[in-house]
Amino acid sequence: MTTSAELDIILAAAAAASRPWAGTTAGQRAVALRAVADALDAAAATLVPIAQDETHLPTGRLNSELARTTFQLRLHADEIETGRPFDPRIDHADPHWGMGPRPDLRRIQRPLGPVVVFAASNFPFAFSVAGGDTSSALAAGCPVVVKAHPGHPKLSEATGRVVRTALDATNGPAGLFAVIYGEEAGRSAILDSRIAAAAFTGSIAGGRALFDLAVSRPVPIPFFGELGSTNPVFVTRAAAAHRAEAIAREFVGSYTLGAGQFCTKPGLLFVPSDSDIPRLLAGPEAQGSYLAQPLLNSRIQLGFQRSLARLREHPDVRPLVTTPDGPDAEPGPVLLTTSITTVLSDPDTLLEECFGPAALVVTYEEERQLLDVAERLPGQLTTTVIGEADDPLAPALIEVASERAGRVLWNQWPTGVSVTYAQQHGGPYPATTAPASTSVGTAAIGRFLRPVAYQGVPRALLPPLLRDSADSA
Amino acid sequence: MTTSAELDIILAAAAAASRPWAGTTAGQRAVALRAVADALDAAAATLVPIAQDETHLPTGRLNSELARTTFQLRLHADEIETGRPFDPRIDHADPHWGMGPRPDLRRIQRPLGPVVVFAASNFPFAFSVAGGDTSSALAAGCPVVVKAHPGHPKLSEATGRVVRTALDATNGPAGLFAVIYGEEAGRSAILDSRIAAAAFTGSIAGGRALFDLAVSRPVPIPFFGELGSTNPVFVTRAAAAHRAEAIAREFVGSYTLGAGQFCTKPGLLFVPSDSDIPRLLAGPEAQGSYLAQPLLNSRIQLGFQRSLARLREHPDVRPLVTTPDGPDAEPGPVLLTTSITTVLSDPDTLLEECFGPAALVVTYEEERQLLDVAERLPGQLTTTVIGEADDPLAPALIEVASERAGRVLWNQWPTGVSVTYAQQHGGPYPATTAPASTSVGTAAIGRFLRPVAYQGVPRALLPPLLRDSADSA
Repeated sequence: MTTSAELDIILAAAAAASRPWAGTTAGQRAVALRAVADALDAAAATLVPIAQDETHLPTGRLNSELARTTFQLRLHADEIETGRPFDPRIDHADPHWGMGPRPDLRRIQRPLGPVVVFAASNFPFAFSVAGGDTSSALAAGCPVVVKAHPGHPKLSEATGRVVRTALDATNGPAGLFAVIYGEEAGRSAILDSRIAAAAFTGSIAGGRALFDLAVSRPVPIPFFGELGSTNPVFVTRAAAAHRAEAIAREFVGSYTLGAGQFCTKPGLLFVPSDSDIPRLLAGPEAQGSYLAQPLLNSRIQLGFQRSLARLREHPDVRPLVTTPDGPDAEPGPVLLTTSITTVLSDPDTLLEECFGPAALVVTYEEERQLLDVAERLPGQLTTTVIGEADDPLAPALIEVASERAGRVLWNQWPTGVSVTYAQQHGGPYPATTAPASTSVGTAAIGRFLRPVAYQGVPRALLPPLLRDSADSA
Repeated sequence: MTTSAELDIILAAAAAASRPWAGTTAGQRAVALRAVADALDAAAATLVPIAQDETHLPTGRLNSELARTTFQLRLHADEIETGRPFDPRIDHADPHWGMGPRPDLRRIQRPLGPVVVFAASNFPFAFSVAGGDTSSALAAGCPVVVKAHPGHPKLSEATGRVVRTALDATNGPAGLFAVIYGEEAGRSAILDSRIAAAAFTGSIAGGRALFDLAVSRPVPIPFFGELGSTNPVFVTRAAAAHRAEAIAREFVGSYTLGAGQFCTKPGLLFVPSDSDIPRLLAGPEAQGSYLAQPLLNSRIQLGFQRSLARLREHPDVRPLVTTPDGPDAEPGPVLLTTSITTVLSDPDTLLEECFGPAALVVTYEEERQLLDVAERLPGQLTTTVIGEADDPLAPALIEVASERAGRVLWNQWPTGVSVTYAQQHGGPYPATTAPASTSVGTAAIGRFLRPVAYQGVPRALLPPLLRDSADSA
């Protein structure tokens, strides 16, 4: 665990690194990010076995997650080189401006300062020490202090060493990057006046506790927390009639992916009560794809069993598919089922996220009930509509989904989150604590920037992106 | 005062207006905003006398403030018609994308939902019922509930009637806009689950109390509060030597503008201890421009006298310019003076905002002390450097200013805030509670939007700005 004396040294160094790192050009930071990506790729043979040992995730998945992580670092490097995240705006002086003469005003996005990143357990590379939050903050020009997830301490340390060596080799300032350990160190960091923003991926309870600390400070700071989501999937009557087998097969693939330990796992599947889908989900063909996998760690397993027990105890919830489990067994996928009227009458119990390989299949009588339930759902990372192009309910379903989720899918499954320019991995609370932000994609960089306008400042004193050819000074 | 029963009806209507207003095109909202602007311009002869009566502000100033307000509505109308605030991003499907095949992803900014706006006292038009917050939220596609400032209730009611009539005439949904009265109604509104965001301009104490409510909710909401700022002005040794008279004259004009009741009033002027500026500020020429003006209301006057008393009681603060005042007199401008070492030894007392026609002239011995004090200052709306182009300290001063303020000025004065594309009226806490946002300029619209990504959604079901010519569906 990081002691408070060690933390103080780390935070002082991060604060000292803030101005030099903010003063680098985007090109210099891009070189550093690419060096980190290269170093991580080169260390794959060392890192992946440590990750495998600590998280029980399969090697193939870990290799592709590491590839995703280094792709993300390089995409952020490319993005800052375009200048886009800094959104330079230049208003030349205008004596004829509508509300009276306008001075020369130029606005640019500047880094916030040192960021504390709380790593997640379920993506030991992509949402951990060198993940999207770290990459975005470094790209923005902010030093980073990562609070390691206790689920993979050795991997955190090893990854941290690779990142730090690469940053040092590209002349990053001392203190630019550090890893800290222990809940107490994390809490102290978020309350420290030298920290300017925080990012988090994890549970609703943990995220809300840290959010409450961030906003309770004498100087509150932005808290970008990704908390929880049940990711509902609405299957229309027409789609269920035409494509029952494909829907059942694809749904099983999605909710069991990574043993259901994705924040975008579809935890709720709404289907017509008279459709074949429930029968197919419980049938022999689907059963073949239910493989028991160990969960990330015993804490996650305990939480999974607890959430599942609460659902199972509900008098109107029935088992649909159960695979053997027990205190010592690896938990196999579980499907429960209930009716939409039950869900509407007890949403607090039935709409809660169950992190792990389980989902609730909800049957409806009237298609319009989908709209009722969609409006009652808490904020979501994703909402999916499985429909036919001419479904009369489709426009309304897409509209309600847009009001409650960060990403809306049509006839696709939410568990893949591509790293792109238009990606939005966020959503209204409790999906996140900052619905205007994303933690995946190039727009994630903007979380760690704030605008500054310069009025009448001579060319030589302006940030380079605000100097234009029309300058006389 | 708005009763809780009345408030409930208003909030239910705002919630009901949310989807229809979000579903209008930007062009339809632009028509509505321009209709509001036209109606306000047409009502000037009615509104300005009410404002004059309630705020004691001179008619000329009120007329130009109203012109600024309607200019802002029209600029926001123009801005949303360009599509820019909605930042449409289209990633076509790409089987060769670096981290694996990419689906079709399209992202756009969508309205948050009903916004409660807490009006300010000091700009009864531009930061009140039809001010920048209302205009931005309506432009974004959000219904607005304005909590009227108690300093100008009749004007709030009259302005609200003009706005509402204009919105009705352009077929805005019922419930799109309402004005509420009373602190209790404001507190209830910000805690109501139907409200999705809040905007505020006012004091640190009042703003922080509302921020604390907004983040304490079961579902926390964004709170865009503009709270307080002392707006320091740093005069370098060279500038003081070359332009003492102009600096003294311009400073008096700026800090006394609107009887010092601007959130951008320069409350701190740093000058070399051996410069002529303090003498000039106290001299007969400058004295001629000190005119006593009534403050907005008795609450503001009381607050002013209290802040001033605290400064005056400090053993190392001396009067520089005093005009007669007393419990009943209109307060005249006041300048106090102290040394930079005193400020550094008691920043909590001496760097606090004093809302009204007063400022503190701080003398320094060593120019480098300016950097020390600049780094100790709390977050600011503005920081000004009065310098010469070849001042050796200028780059460092501009840099520190950029770290602590939303707007950095060079040889200009902060009290004018032009409404433009590059304007940034915001800054680190306590200047605002949301340092990434601005409450003035076209970027203000973005406060009330959040991104949604659409994955694989057919053309007909996409928001119009996300349909491109390359679509096959």
